[in-house]
Amino acid sequence: MSAPTVSPADPASGHADVEQVVTGLARSAKAASRSLAQLTTATKNDVLLAAADAIEAASESVLAANADDIARAEAAGIEESLLDRLRLTGARVTGIADGLRQVAALDDPIGAVIAGKTLPNGLRLRQQRVPLGVVGIVYEARPNVTVDAFGIAFKSGNAVLLRGSSSAASSNAELVRILRETLSDKGVTADAVALLPSEDRSSVTALIRARGLVDVVIPRGGAGLINAVVTNATVPTIETGTGNCHVYVHAAADVELATRVVLNSKTRRPSVCNTAETVLVDKKIAADALPKIAQALQSQGVVIHGDEPGMEPATEADWADEYLSLDIAMKVVDDLDAAVAHIDQWGTGHTEAIITTDLAAATEFTERVDAAAVMVNASTAFTDGEQFGFGAEIGISTQKLHARGPMGLPELTSTKWVVWGDGQIRPA
Amino acid sequence: MSAPTVSPADPASGHADVEQVVTGLARSAKAASRSLAQLTTATKNDVLLAAADAIEAASESVLAANADDIARAEAAGIEESLLDRLRLTGARVTGIADGLRQVAALDDPIGAVIAGKTLPNGLRLRQQRVPLGVVGIVYEARPNVTVDAFGIAFKSGNAVLLRGSSSAASSNAELVRILRETLSDKGVTADAVALLPSEDRSSVTALIRARGLVDVVIPRGGAGLINAVVTNATVPTIETGTGNCHVYVHAAADVELATRVVLNSKTRRPSVCNTAETVLVDKKIAADALPKIAQALQSQGVVIHGDEPGMEPATEADWADEYLSLDIAMKVVDDLDAAVAHIDQWGTGHTEAIITTDLAAATEFTERVDAAAVMVNASTAFTDGEQFGFGAEIGISTQKLHARGPMGLPELTSTKWVVWGDGQIRPA
Repeated sequence: MSAPTVSPADPASGHADVEQVVTGLARSAKAASRSLAQLTTATKNDVLLAAADAIEAASESVLAANADDIARAEAAGIEESLLDRLRLTGARVTGIADGLRQVAALDDPIGAVIAGKTLPNGLRLRQQRVPLGVVGIVYEARPNVTVDAFGIAFKSGNAVLLRGSSSAASSNAELVRILRETLSDKGVTADAVALLPSEDRSSVTALIRARGLVDVVIPRGGAGLINAVVTNATVPTIETGTGNCHVYVHAAADVELATRVVLNSKTRRPSVCNTAETVLVDKKIAADALPKIAQALQSQGVVIHGDEPGMEPATEADWADEYLSLDIAMKVVDDLDAAVAHIDQWGTGHTEAIITTDLAAATEFTERVDAAAVMVNASTAFTDGEQFGFGAEIGISTQKLHARGPMGLPELTSTKWVVWGDGQIRPA
Repeated sequence: MSAPTVSPADPASGHADVEQVVTGLARSAKAASRSLAQLTTATKNDVLLAAADAIEAASESVLAANADDIARAEAAGIEESLLDRLRLTGARVTGIADGLRQVAALDDPIGAVIAGKTLPNGLRLRQQRVPLGVVGIVYEARPNVTVDAFGIAFKSGNAVLLRGSSSAASSNAELVRILRETLSDKGVTADAVALLPSEDRSSVTALIRARGLVDVVIPRGGAGLINAVVTNATVPTIETGTGNCHVYVHAAADVELATRVVLNSKTRRPSVCNTAETVLVDKKIAADALPKIAQALQSQGVVIHGDEPGMEPATEADWADEYLSLDIAMKVVDDLDAAVAHIDQWGTGHTEAIITTDLAAATEFTERVDAAAVMVNASTAFTDGEQFGFGAEIGISTQKLHARGPMGLPELTSTKWVVWGDGQIRPA
């Protein structure tokens, strides 16, 4: 196992040592970020393509490291769904490499001028995109995130500190070893990417408190992880991915269309954050729509939590639950006002949908509902960076500051005002 | 004193009560924010203009409340410069009202579409500006901030929670009373603005921990206040206004121009965050430039901290100090690399300037220096929302997330993706 080359932590050491290790890695990342900000697009793409080739070429060692992780996970009795997320195959390794190639093909956001003007006194202003600097990512089992996050952060000129799951420690270490080796081969600082120790939570704590060294931390994972990061951080954070999403079937809905969209919103991939967790059915259409939608869901094995016959009795907890499984809550609401009020109370600001043929209702819903994405007559499953055409996604922000919704390359940038003059001074 | 109408805190009550009061006000603000987001531009402008008139009409009661504050401050022996910031006059009250009229004249950022596309499957996406929701502002003595902050927050569709200085408590209470009365008269929720108790720091603590109710807190004031807010908050924050700004006089500088720009950068208003605090003089030009610049500064009463004869001896603390006074540090540096390294080490990411006639040097400096604003041959005093043509400013962000540099109306907004379809579902 090659962990020591990328994470010089002694696994036997205590929290104070982990903090020192993380601070040291953050300091190196900060230094690296100065030169990464100056890289040309050509150099960055060259590194990304070389890293893709290197990962494919090292497929055997990556799979061997992953086999270690799988063996440990099996010995620990980890459930099959998690094992599947952890497991790499030859095809998955190729997929990881292809992800880097896709990022290489994307537009470089750095240097883009997003505003500018000439002032009456002749000063020429331009506001241009610059990297954030050092980005920390805290994530769970899937090793592909290690490479994806590096690719997106690197293309947008940032150094990245990765804190993956301990269950994927061997896979992550091997992948980061390959990335750092490629960087060095290309004459770019290897500190563009580093893997933090993952033995316990102390490395997360050190990362989220490295003020002055880390510019943002993005947690990707369950609600518990996200909440712990966001409430304890002293560095800026971006909340991602908690999705208690609703589909509101309005009085003027096309019931066949509603059934199709609800079914897709729930069953396409029940474990992801854009899956629908509650269906709100307008009472004026409930007698017709509710049994049809319920039957379609049940025929696909979905358990419905609600107050109608044949459903699991619903409690308040069902309105709050992000099931992430083949479960859905169903509720009859009086009207659009009641639907919006329910969403205001229980939604997490991720994705909310209305099914209707009524223009005024659709417009009112999109204006009043406060969420990262509001859909009219479309599946909640579309809230996704790839689907939105970003080409890559680092997560889906459910906060309002900095970025909201799917985050691509531009969301990992900041801006700088550059002002050119010829001796202007400001009057008193 | 009319504080009870806007801040129902019993001044004799303990911290737990203050927390309850703040949470209650935050909850009301959150509820108000739902309807504020839906106001038309016409309604918002109508309220702003009516509030301006109401403040002018109530000038007498505002000045009487301010006289209370001044009397308390004098009794407490507060220094004259702070008294001046606290003091209102008839002309200053008119200035406050005119500020609201200026905001009414600005473009409404809400509803602006900043991106959009049609996907191959026919889904029509648009990304539109929406309010942040509830904005908290923590600020120091000047009562005009109370009205300015309301104006900017209201025009951008937000509810605002104001936590002003206890020294301005009477002035702030009277101003907020007028604002709330005007809102009610116009049929808009008065909870668009509320003043928090200011007896002690506990209201700040409650505000910055009101997760789920407050969308962002912006501290405006000294470094101590800003640091306390940013490191203890569990809600998102925006750091503002700490400015350790440098002017680097490059080897190829026009010395007369350099002298003029340095003088303006330091002496125009030494107490504001965009004032220059250190001059870095390239050693290749130092023999000529340094005495000329030093003499010009000294002739205006500026005390120079440095290693040359006639200067106050400089220590490391001088490189770190944000003097905010008629003091400046001066240092001879080897070259542009050394200037950039000094700024990397000591700068606060606010405004950095280079004086040079050399295009390559100017370009390299603007690209390499990591700050909200980088000036070429221009005074650091230009980093300002009014100067940049924003029409109004809520502060100058020195962080990289969400907003960087002067913040106007668009910086108090978030975005929402609105997606229109006709039954699209996402393939597996």
